[in-house]
Amino acid sequence: MTTSVSTERSTDPSATDLVSALTRLFAAGQAATDAPTLATHSHDDAEWAAYEPPIAVVFAESTGDVVTAVRFAADRGIRVVPRGAGTGLSGGANSVANCIVVSLERMSAILEVDTDERLAVAQAGVINDTLRAEVAKSGLWYPPDPASSAISSIGGNAATNAGGICCVKYGVTRDYVLGLTVVLADASVVRLGHRTAKGVTGYDLTGLMVGSEGTLGIITEVTVRLLPLAGREERAVIGYFPSLVAAGDAVAAVSRAGIVPAALELIDSTCIAAVEAWQGLGLPDGVDPAQVNTLLLAKVDERGEAGDESADEIAAIFAAAGGSRVERATEKADVDRLFLTRRLAYPALERLGPVLTEDICVPRGQVPEMLARIQASAASHDVVIANIAHAGDGNLHPLIIAPEDDPAAKERARIAFEEIIANCLALGGTVSGEHGVGLLKLPGAATELGPRVVDLHRSIKAALDPAGTLNPGKAFPAAPLTRT
Amino acid sequence: MTTSVSTERSTDPSATDLVSALTRLFAAGQAATDAPTLATHSHDDAEWAAYEPPIAVVFAESTGDVVTAVRFAADRGIRVVPRGAGTGLSGGANSVANCIVVSLERMSAILEVDTDERLAVAQAGVINDTLRAEVAKSGLWYPPDPASSAISSIGGNAATNAGGICCVKYGVTRDYVLGLTVVLADASVVRLGHRTAKGVTGYDLTGLMVGSEGTLGIITEVTVRLLPLAGREERAVIGYFPSLVAAGDAVAAVSRAGIVPAALELIDSTCIAAVEAWQGLGLPDGVDPAQVNTLLLAKVDERGEAGDESADEIAAIFAAAGGSRVERATEKADVDRLFLTRRLAYPALERLGPVLTEDICVPRGQVPEMLARIQASAASHDVVIANIAHAGDGNLHPLIIAPEDDPAAKERARIAFEEIIANCLALGGTVSGEHGVGLLKLPGAATELGPRVVDLHRSIKAALDPAGTLNPGKAFPAAPLTRT
Repeated sequence: MTTSVSTERSTDPSATDLVSALTRLFAAGQAATDAPTLATHSHDDAEWAAYEPPIAVVFAESTGDVVTAVRFAADRGIRVVPRGAGTGLSGGANSVANCIVVSLERMSAILEVDTDERLAVAQAGVINDTLRAEVAKSGLWYPPDPASSAISSIGGNAATNAGGICCVKYGVTRDYVLGLTVVLADASVVRLGHRTAKGVTGYDLTGLMVGSEGTLGIITEVTVRLLPLAGREERAVIGYFPSLVAAGDAVAAVSRAGIVPAALELIDSTCIAAVEAWQGLGLPDGVDPAQVNTLLLAKVDERGEAGDESADEIAAIFAAAGGSRVERATEKADVDRLFLTRRLAYPALERLGPVLTEDICVPRGQVPEMLARIQASAASHDVVIANIAHAGDGNLHPLIIAPEDDPAAKERARIAFEEIIANCLALGGTVSGEHGVGLLKLPGAATELGPRVVDLHRSIKAALDPAGTLNPGKAFPAAPLTRT
Repeated sequence: MTTSVSTERSTDPSATDLVSALTRLFAAGQAATDAPTLATHSHDDAEWAAYEPPIAVVFAESTGDVVTAVRFAADRGIRVVPRGAGTGLSGGANSVANCIVVSLERMSAILEVDTDERLAVAQAGVINDTLRAEVAKSGLWYPPDPASSAISSIGGNAATNAGGICCVKYGVTRDYVLGLTVVLADASVVRLGHRTAKGVTGYDLTGLMVGSEGTLGIITEVTVRLLPLAGREERAVIGYFPSLVAAGDAVAAVSRAGIVPAALELIDSTCIAAVEAWQGLGLPDGVDPAQVNTLLLAKVDERGEAGDESADEIAAIFAAAGGSRVERATEKADVDRLFLTRRLAYPALERLGPVLTEDICVPRGQVPEMLARIQASAASHDVVIANIAHAGDGNLHPLIIAPEDDPAAKERARIAFEEIIANCLALGGTVSGEHGVGLLKLPGAATELGPRVVDLHRSIKAALDPAGTLNPGKAFPAAPLTRT
């Protein structure tokens, strides 16, 4: 019961005839075959993940368009790779040879915002921040906030079960998906889930689709649960620590104190230095970059005195753990200023070269040890690895500078990458906290899941997509992968 | 790709030899075949759901015991019905002819409480309240609180994705299950999920198992996420309303105001009258039962002034919606006193006859309309139907008095039951908010899910349990059911 992921070129009818036949099914401009469009839609934002250009890109404007494309492909044994905004970091949207990429980017309508039921229905291509802004007009809040929120789509967020900064208190995308409209591998359309606050009728197929990276179905509409926008007051607490260990101790102490912050982010010395070297404004007056090894940035969002108390407690814990300076803010502008280093870290790192964004998650208590092992890998293999982390979740993003034009350096980076995954697993972690398995984490996933659980994945894939039409080779280890 | 649910008696070897062979695999007292044990372990707490006695009950004391029982059964084409505490309300644990019931009740060890990671690992048979009490010693809180929390087990809670009173703010069992140990239909053992705060490696098989009612695997251990016990302060607000519509308006207004209470329960006049007739202490001094049609009981649990503000807002909304009297409490004894009618409602109703506990969930805004339709069904079919509801979730529990010794009355009750399900679906609801499909909701689930989604269930069942060994005929509509 294995799924074929063959990407052999279909030769009958000829590729040209095939593309012509596909194009005739859609309105002008909806099925693109020009090389630039194929190139820009052949991969996501993951470094290192293999891809090949598709034979065509279909820009779906409706669920019906997706049905048409999937039926066309299924009838001819062609693979379909669904694509949201292409901002993934694991290669999950990467095209395989001779496939059709179905882009959901034009399905960008917010279909409904229901204030009383606190839900919204959005087409898959709606950008995360767009949805958040729209529901805010009705006094509602969509919490999941991946770093890509300005550019990533709700459909992609659901397909990868995206996380974000607020997860430590508010959970991940899956916790906000009530229902889905999905085009299955046989081109049938199903509505999964419910519009009610609760519901346990049948298997949790909504949850199964969320995070399945388009391998079990193509999500075209998402019904999301919302929270009230009111009732939160953000306060920021930032601590400057002399060592990773001190910062890690502070993270553990916050958890142990029974505080659930709305964010608890860590930024290491490499990131701080990169930001300082670039813009020189990541640190406030009076803080000597040379004395700062690690930053912790916390937010709490309870209203009133409860929020003050939580912020006080966190500030006291930061100080007790060796925070050399602890700052607080309640005004939005000040909160944003304190989080500036966090926002600048990634672009600052990218100035140093292509960044492979790792995404491991370890038990909270193992954050200092994991960071120490990452530093050791960087040192022993002569690789630049910076760290930003959703520390409150144990979700670390080692940022590996992965030079393209220096094969020796790239090889050293690859070895460090594998070492990080092995160390994560040794510490009881998971190889993907929020980015998904895609292509990059297939070997790590094989180790983590083990053969029997991998076999369960294969069985479910075979049950829902027996011909292996949808996004072959992604999300779980199966047959050998296409490599460029 | 359908799953056999045949329950034909296995004739080779003879039933007696079979039971002897099974018994020899276990220690004394672990495999019971006496009639009283078979009888007490042949059904759950659902009225009306069919069952037949099993050929044996295996009291598993370890995951290995479950493996032994499942392997024995799978090798011989015998069905296995897993059973937690037997407190289900949909017939999900009901025995079928010639099956082996595997009871998890002796697997009652709490294996681990990890304060720093805020998680616990419990064997499936641990009682919900026992787990809650144990983790409280470490300053931690397990939120899911089904009404059966004193008698239901964590394994059963996970298998049915149990809800409870606090769901309106804190979610359901699925939101707290990080990982599972599961015995699959081929007697292999898998560990699903993770111990980290986040994790998206592979399909969400943990979520697929949760709520699958033992049809895809037998849960033997559950790893649960916990919250800090500290930081909450409970306040109760109770309102006495002259009509269901007024109470329903208050529920909608609370939601619209952006308040997320920690509980929002509704009790109708039939329940109030039953409690008054029984104990006469459900209502405070000065409230005339004849003037009270509906009670709303709210809890808020924010700390400090934020909690006061929320309670003030709810009290004001209750008054504005026509609450004839609104009471508040902050002391635990007073909070408990205000919730007394809620706790007494079910036993008070049971004094009137066997109670079929319905479990529909409608959009919040449809609560008054649904309650009105339930009252109309009760009136037109001359059936006593009381209502308790997790109103903040739209999750209603019509309590249908279902006489066993009056066939005409039972038939009228059955018609009312079906009408309620049809009305729930017509109003955009789901046939099970938290109890599960079991046997009782199979027809409703068929209507709600539709043939293609039912077929997805069958495909997944066939992929994971091709011989149909585990809990045949439950959780989703498949082949015709065994009827007693």
